[in-house]
Amino acid sequence: VSDVATRNPTTGESRSLGFTETSPSEVLGFTALAAEAAGPLAAKPLAWRAGLLRAMAAELENDSDQLVVLADSETALGPTRLGGELRRTAFQLRFFASVVDDGTFLAASIDHPTDSPMGPLPDLRRYNVPLGPVAVFASSNFPFAFSVPGGDTSSAIAAGCPVVIKAHPGHPGTSAATFAALSRAAQSVGAPDGTLGLAFGFDAGLQLVDAPQITAVGFTGSVVAGRALLARANARPTPIPFYGELGSANPLVVTSAAADERAADIGVAVAGSVALGVGQFCTKPGPVFVPSGVAGDAVVTALAAALDAAAVGAALTPAIAAGFNEGARVIQEVAGVRAVTDGHDAAAGQLAPALYETDVAHFAADTGSALREECFGPLALVVRFDSAESLAHGLGVAAPALTFSIFTATTDDDARWLIDLGAQRAGRLVVNAVPTGVGVSWSQQHGGPWPSTTAAASTSVGAGAIARWLRPVAYQGVPDEMLPEPLKESNPLGIPRRVDGQLAI
Amino acid sequence: VSDVATRNPTTGESRSLGFTETSPSEVLGFTALAAEAAGPLAAKPLAWRAGLLRAMAAELENDSDQLVVLADSETALGPTRLGGELRRTAFQLRFFASVVDDGTFLAASIDHPTDSPMGPLPDLRRYNVPLGPVAVFASSNFPFAFSVPGGDTSSAIAAGCPVVIKAHPGHPGTSAATFAALSRAAQSVGAPDGTLGLAFGFDAGLQLVDAPQITAVGFTGSVVAGRALLARANARPTPIPFYGELGSANPLVVTSAAADERAADIGVAVAGSVALGVGQFCTKPGPVFVPSGVAGDAVVTALAAALDAAAVGAALTPAIAAGFNEGARVIQEVAGVRAVTDGHDAAAGQLAPALYETDVAHFAADTGSALREECFGPLALVVRFDSAESLAHGLGVAAPALTFSIFTATTDDDARWLIDLGAQRAGRLVVNAVPTGVGVSWSQQHGGPWPSTTAAASTSVGAGAIARWLRPVAYQGVPDEMLPEPLKESNPLGIPRRVDGQLAI
Repeated sequence: VSDVATRNPTTGESRSLGFTETSPSEVLGFTALAAEAAGPLAAKPLAWRAGLLRAMAAELENDSDQLVVLADSETALGPTRLGGELRRTAFQLRFFASVVDDGTFLAASIDHPTDSPMGPLPDLRRYNVPLGPVAVFASSNFPFAFSVPGGDTSSAIAAGCPVVIKAHPGHPGTSAATFAALSRAAQSVGAPDGTLGLAFGFDAGLQLVDAPQITAVGFTGSVVAGRALLARANARPTPIPFYGELGSANPLVVTSAAADERAADIGVAVAGSVALGVGQFCTKPGPVFVPSGVAGDAVVTALAAALDAAAVGAALTPAIAAGFNEGARVIQEVAGVRAVTDGHDAAAGQLAPALYETDVAHFAADTGSALREECFGPLALVVRFDSAESLAHGLGVAAPALTFSIFTATTDDDARWLIDLGAQRAGRLVVNAVPTGVGVSWSQQHGGPWPSTTAAASTSVGAGAIARWLRPVAYQGVPDEMLPEPLKESNPLGIPRRVDGQLAI
Repeated sequence: VSDVATRNPTTGESRSLGFTETSPSEVLGFTALAAEAAGPLAAKPLAWRAGLLRAMAAELENDSDQLVVLADSETALGPTRLGGELRRTAFQLRFFASVVDDGTFLAASIDHPTDSPMGPLPDLRRYNVPLGPVAVFASSNFPFAFSVPGGDTSSAIAAGCPVVIKAHPGHPGTSAATFAALSRAAQSVGAPDGTLGLAFGFDAGLQLVDAPQITAVGFTGSVVAGRALLARANARPTPIPFYGELGSANPLVVTSAAADERAADIGVAVAGSVALGVGQFCTKPGPVFVPSGVAGDAVVTALAAALDAAAVGAALTPAIAAGFNEGARVIQEVAGVRAVTDGHDAAAGQLAPALYETDVAHFAADTGSALREECFGPLALVVRFDSAESLAHGLGVAAPALTFSIFTATTDDDARWLIDLGAQRAGRLVVNAVPTGVGVSWSQQHGGPWPSTTAAASTSVGAGAIARWLRPVAYQGVPDEMLPEPLKESNPLGIPRRVDGQLAI
């Protein structure tokens, strides 16, 4: 069993954290404890569950200063970004507490006995119960918001499920420290042992996916890893749902009218989105469709200049740096692709902003995947189009994605069809804004058609994220005193319910 | 390409229907047409969609007399059952029309721009859109309600998805005739070509699962076939969701108190459920847990007598007859199992009611799957328990299922823990009633943990069935005039929505 080491992306130095990767017997212990916790956790009142989430938020904030320093030493994302991400993560925990308080997620429904064309129907009541222990694979690029205390964990806790987290090797120290904060919160409210577990190491992750007690998996990572784990989750004796948020090459369109109206502003905005977080966002723009001609040239010029001026930054991990360099190399070799800017030589482990350009004909002619797959890092590929038809052709070739962004003008013949097309090709359609920045709210959708996620009907951000960890149970003919609280006739929880087909708030 | 033949289960005679199985090029044609229909179908107003479902119900009822005769010639289920099933199917189509009218299934949510701890959040609106073309695999045992015009088709149409159906070979004539009725309805309301397709043959089914235009699969059938198709759906270049309703060995418990109170009534009720439809229901009781002792003996005696008196019936298909005979043979060979009644010799292709008995110790000791898997047909396995502990042990060994039924007494110490346990092990918990009979309603849940379904969070009956064919899309910063109707500020459809986190009916 290997030592767990932490690496500073800026200095490239590694050091042992003084503990080893989680052994198979330790993983067995986590999953067994989680299975024991599932029943008691599910039985806790909703108000208690919301309190646990709020306690977690408070404990994270208590440790905020140290956590940001620690995370910066492991990710080089900088204290401003990391401080904001920690605030977001605490907000997200409190948001899920409000989702629990609201109670709509239970989808409680009551059908009183009635007659029907099929004869009499019995008393039937249905609501959502927690699935059971959930495994969460943390991301590389969000050490807080999509990692140990992130959206998968907080939505699973909100659903009433114990969580065993597989730490990302890019920030093991932060993983352990944030886990300690969550664990203090769990202890403070008397959560059952086994409510939370944390595992380190590749093999521990595989073992979690295979563990019979695990009932679902949340994952943030690459298409290759996600696809392998999806197959593994389905090959179990008991298949389980696998919710993977994978790579995304997010199309972004600048219409001809928008380029005519404000080329420079758009170019600068897109560059900011491409370079944000050293380009290490799943919502980073992928192919950027820009009209041919003078106005489009001005967009590209502004985009190139802003990217050229953007800072070189450390990659989160050596693997990401290697993937970025390889991606850029392959893109440059595709016929019809030219480098607009890849001027600065980056040191090893550093990512320098880069911009490439092609046209729809070459984009569509590339039978490989180089131009259509996500290149993780501060890189954009401009695809020039010379008509609405050529734009539609290029967008049809682009992969479905998490987001689809459209820069339009005040009067714009292309807006409507692009909105319709974008809604078919992505989970979130953005007009006149960049796709980076995914707010935690009731209406958020962070999940789109394959390959951006393994389950397009799910979201990993926003209130809908809780649905992944629930399943409905119907109670037929159960006496009121034996019914769970959400289904009792008197509605003691005061939650929204459907009664005899009518919504009642 | 083989001829499609229909077989009369009562006479065993087969005859060609005068057409061949669907060829690969014909399947390509169906899926291409379905893909073309997806956009226009999704764009139709909700009221039109509800009208299509109601027209389908009316056309089915128009052909009711001929359809029942035809289905009886292919299934031998009898005109009473089949007439009821057809009424149920028409009711189900109209029920989904009401679900469409209601509009809650769109889950429309609006977040107006606001400030947050993460900074300003933009205008964001989310609702559910149709997934796209859906493939539906019809069942053997419900020629109407879970076949061409059944729950998968009607819920997918309600969601706004084109449907290509793979007919079950057990009732091809009924499949073609019900498809003709649905097609007339589609034409009468001007549905796009490609809204409905019907394919015959095993290979056509596989081709549908592989077809790039297909976005999800609904399936009713065996665990073996369902597992193979689940793997196939996930192995596609673009994996798609697979909703399989598979086999289910539904536990049924008679508590000691209930046996003391009304042994004979319970035995007769359970026998009725076991023999209903010649036992060919996915909700047929599986292991029947009965207390040891005199009261339990009385339950078994009544159950055996009623089963002995139940009619022998034709199996739907020769494969089902062979599976039933093999299942009964294997069960009898398990140590500690005795035959209570398998008295009458059934002719080839006929199913005779059979009852076996064992105890918890032998049930739990059987390391094979004979006692724990569904045996499709009029067969029940009584499992005797001698304490609450032994009952809990036996129930823990039994497979999770679609349903979990408990016969209790007015005062019953075992009721509460059994209800809690049942809710963990099944999708529908039934108290003091048999599990057969699955009403179409808002609160229905027909789906449980593996192996009863491939997706425990889904249902194939009731309002929730529509959710399988939808995915959410978020619209960020989209001008009101460009928003889809469900998300426009003025709520022109008058549907329930969540606005700034508050439900508004």
